[in-house]
Amino acid sequence: MPRYRAILEYDGGPFVGWQRQRSGISVQQAVEEAIVKFTGQTVAVFAAGRTDAGVHALGQVIHFDLGRPFDTETVRDAINFHLKPHPVSILSATEAADDFHARFSAIGRSYVYRIVNRRAPLAIDRGRRWWVPMALDSDAMAEASKCLIGKHDFSTFRAALCQAKSPVKTLDVCDVARTGEAIDISVEARSFLHHQVRNMVGTLKLVGEGKWSAADMKAALEARDRARGGPTTACGCWPH
Amino acid sequence: MPRYRAILEYDGGPFVGWQRQRSGISVQQAVEEAIVKFTGQTVAVFAAGRTDAGVHALGQVIHFDLGRPFDTETVRDAINFHLKPHPVSILSATEAADDFHARFSAIGRSYVYRIVNRRAPLAIDRGRRWWVPMALDSDAMAEASKCLIGKHDFSTFRAALCQAKSPVKTLDVCDVARTGEAIDISVEARSFLHHQVRNMVGTLKLVGEGKWSAADMKAALEARDRARGGPTTACGCWPH
Repeated sequence: MPRYRAILEYDGGPFVGWQRQRSGISVQQAVEEAIVKFTGQTVAVFAAGRTDAGVHALGQVIHFDLGRPFDTETVRDAINFHLKPHPVSILSATEAADDFHARFSAIGRSYVYRIVNRRAPLAIDRGRRWWVPMALDSDAMAEASKCLIGKHDFSTFRAALCQAKSPVKTLDVCDVARTGEAIDISVEARSFLHHQVRNMVGTLKLVGEGKWSAADMKAALEARDRARGGPTTACGCWPH
Repeated sequence: MPRYRAILEYDGGPFVGWQRQRSGISVQQAVEEAIVKFTGQTVAVFAAGRTDAGVHALGQVIHFDLGRPFDTETVRDAINFHLKPHPVSILSATEAADDFHARFSAIGRSYVYRIVNRRAPLAIDRGRRWWVPMALDSDAMAEASKCLIGKHDFSTFRAALCQAKSPVKTLDVCDVARTGEAIDISVEARSFLHHQVRNMVGTLKLVGEGKWSAADMKAALEARDRARGGPTTACGCWPH
């Protein structure tokens, strides 16, 4: 059975997240059903990362096996045709080796958490950015974020439900960049703990508000205790 | 009666356009109703430009009179509060002179028409960009667009319904810029004819597809005949 690797873009707004759940439609279900319509065969689709409800993807890597070979442009265009009207799109599809696995072959994951820091609510970027009306000191956030870079026990930023064997992860990139009213927080690592990004961002927001110092952030990290971290941020469709 | 000038951001997707119409809710109606909820008085709101259905605003200038003075932060925040859940937001409000008029005091208008040129349909930017799957030659479009700059009779790009006294307009800026798969067409003028931007963009697309040359564009402009121009592009919520 030929294996295909594809890169997926999606708007996480209408979905319960990547993974199939009884509570609503998932991105995984949308893609699997589009492939059934294309080939007539049921198929399992695997992703590099299981995004939460409301989290969007700019380049989620997936893989799946088809019953017979198709050229890769046909794979992309036919699945995209059957994905309508879901806001999910295959940007590209390539043939992959039999032992390629979107999750286990991944050598890194990168996320960007996008804040708009202004008094006025969001009209055009609603659901695509996090609206924070109180003024944030992005320089202080950038300074505090530095202590997160490197190999650490990230228990302070780990969700109770996290199934990872170890709380030790290596954060390769943690960058806070302001452009006008936009603040983008970019992170990269081999892998992340459950809710690690959202918990780190929620804590960095405390720094931006002046409630926490960079030293508080470092002390929280070193405490290795979820109770010492800041709140989990929302993601996706922020009502206001 | 104190007059206020405000800058508005909106997602044109759910609206019939700026202007009140019987066929559905307009941005004007949404703003006027929010002001009634705020002050209890009916009010007329005037805009610099009457955008079509599906056209978004990054900085639409409006003005309105209130029955009594309020500080400008209250005007912004109170109207934004009552605008919920519409995707419309007042970015800022300032006091204006009694003779200020959003439409007649405007000294220029600028629009950007955003294309995404790739095979894969849009997921995240759906309704915010125009998806063009066939490859466009943006250099040829940029070259052809140059003949539009300056003072011309733009009858070739004028809608039949246009109420302007003269078809002569001065285009100060017409820029075609590609960044990866994004092509932005930016135009600026004192004022535009009805559908002028969408007709010029539809014609530039013919050039991008290789169906028209820069010379064809120039000949069409000089013909001063709508029948010689390219098609009107859609705007806003492009279904696919």
